Amino acid sequence: MRQVFQQELSEVQGRLVEIAELVKIAIVDATQAFNESDLALAEKVIEDDAKIDELSLSLDELSIQILARQQPVARDLRVVVSALRMSASLERMGDIAEHIASLARYRFPERVIAKGLRGTFREMGELDVEIATRLVELLRTQDNDLADQMRDLDDKVDALHLKVFGKVLDEAWGGTTADTVDATLASRYHERFGDHAVSISKKVKYLSTGDWADQGDAAK
Amino acid sequence: MRQVFQQELSEVQGRLVEIAELVKIAIVDATQAFNESDLALAEKVIEDDAKIDELSLSLDELSIQILARQQPVARDLRVVVSALRMSASLERMGDIAEHIASLARYRFPERVIAKGLRGTFREMGELDVEIATRLVELLRTQDNDLADQMRDLDDKVDALHLKVFGKVLDEAWGGTTADTVDATLASRYHERFGDHAVSISKKVKYLSTGDWADQGDAAK
Repeated sequence: MRQVFQQELSEVQGRLVEIAELVKIAIVDATQAFNESDLALAEKVIEDDAKIDELSLSLDELSIQILARQQPVARDLRVVVSALRMSASLERMGDIAEHIASLARYRFPERVIAKGLRGTFREMGELDVEIATRLVELLRTQDNDLADQMRDLDDKVDALHLKVFGKVLDEAWGGTTADTVDATLASRYHERFGDHAVSISKKVKYLSTGDWADQGDAAK
Repeated sequence: MRQVFQQELSEVQGRLVEIAELVKIAIVDATQAFNESDLALAEKVIEDDAKIDELSLSLDELSIQILARQQPVARDLRVVVSALRMSASLERMGDIAEHIASLARYRFPERVIAKGLRGTFREMGELDVEIATRLVELLRTQDNDLADQMRDLDDKVDALHLKVFGKVLDEAWGGTTADTVDATLASRYHERFGDHAVSISKKVKYLSTGDWADQGDAAK
C-alpha cells in the first residue's frame, strides 16, 4: 500500500511539473507576444491555455482519487492537499499569461505599451519568466534555495509594479488614456503571476519544513 | 462515525457561512468607503481582513483534520475538498475588498473615482454587495436559485466593467492619469470579486448536482 501511495505521489509531482512547464511556455510566449506585438504568438498562448486548464482539472481528479483510495494521514495527507492548491495556482498563472497575450492581441498591430515603459515591462516579463523557470525546477527537485530565489525575484517584480505607477503618474508621461489603462492592467497581471508562483513555492517549502501556517494563499 | 462526520460537516458549513458574512461586511464597508471617501471605514476594512484570513486558515485546518480522522470517500470527500476551495475563494474576496478600501485610503481626502464614473462604480459596488448577500444565503441554504441569481448579477458586473473601459477610452473622458489608473484597478477588483463568488456558487451547485467538471476555479 505504502509503495503504491509513493508511486501515486510521484505521479502527482510529475503532473505538477508538467503543468508548470506549460505555464512557463505560456509566460515566455505571452511576454514575447506582448513586447513584440506578435499576434500569432498571442493567439497560440490564448488557445493553449485550455490544455493547462484540462491538466489542472485532471490532476485534481487524481488527487481526490488518491485521497479516497489511500486515505493518507499526517504529512502524506498534506502533500495531497497541497497538490490541489498548487494545481489551482498553476491554473491561475496560465490564465494570467493568457490575459497578457490578450492585451497584445487586442492592441495589434499597435504595441501595447507606450515607448517610455517598454524597458520596464521587458524587465518585468523577464523576471516572470525567471520565476516560472525556477518554479519548474523547484517542483522537480524540492530545492528550497529556488524558493528563496523566487521570493527575491518577486520582490523585484513588485518594485517594478510600483515603478510603472510612478511613471504613468509622472508629469512626463505622454501616454494616451488607453496606454494608461493597458499599462495598469499589464502591470497588475505581471505582479500577480509572481505572487501565485511564490504562493506555490511556500507550499513546497512547507512540505519540507512542516510550517503549514506560513503557506497561505497568494500574497496580496 | 457517520453521525460525527455529519456534525463535522455542519461545523464546516457553519464556518463557511461565518467567513462569508465577514466578507459581506467587508464589501459593504469597502464600497461605501470607496464611494464616500470614508477613511475610517476604509481602515476598518483593511484591519479586519486579518480576521478573514485567520478564519480561512483555521477552516482549512479543520477540513484537513476531518479528512484525516473520518477518511471520507465519494461525495463526502468532495464536500470536504470543496470546502477547502471555497475557503480559498472567500479569503481572496476579503483581499479584494481590502484592495478597494486601500484605493479609498490612498486617495483620501479626494474621492477615488472621477465624477463621470461615480454612478457606474456605485452600481458595481451594489451588485457586488448583492452577490455577497446571496452567497451567504447560498452557503446557508444550498438553494441553487441563489447561484443562478449570482451568475446573472455577475454578468451585470462584467458589463459595467466593460462600460468603465468604454468611458475612460471615450474622448469625453476628462479624468487625469491617476483617475484612469484608479478606475482601471477598481473596476478590475469589482469584477474579480464577483468572479470568485460565482466560482464558489458553482461548487455549491456541484455538490447538489454532481457535475464536478463544471466547477473549475474563478472565471477569467
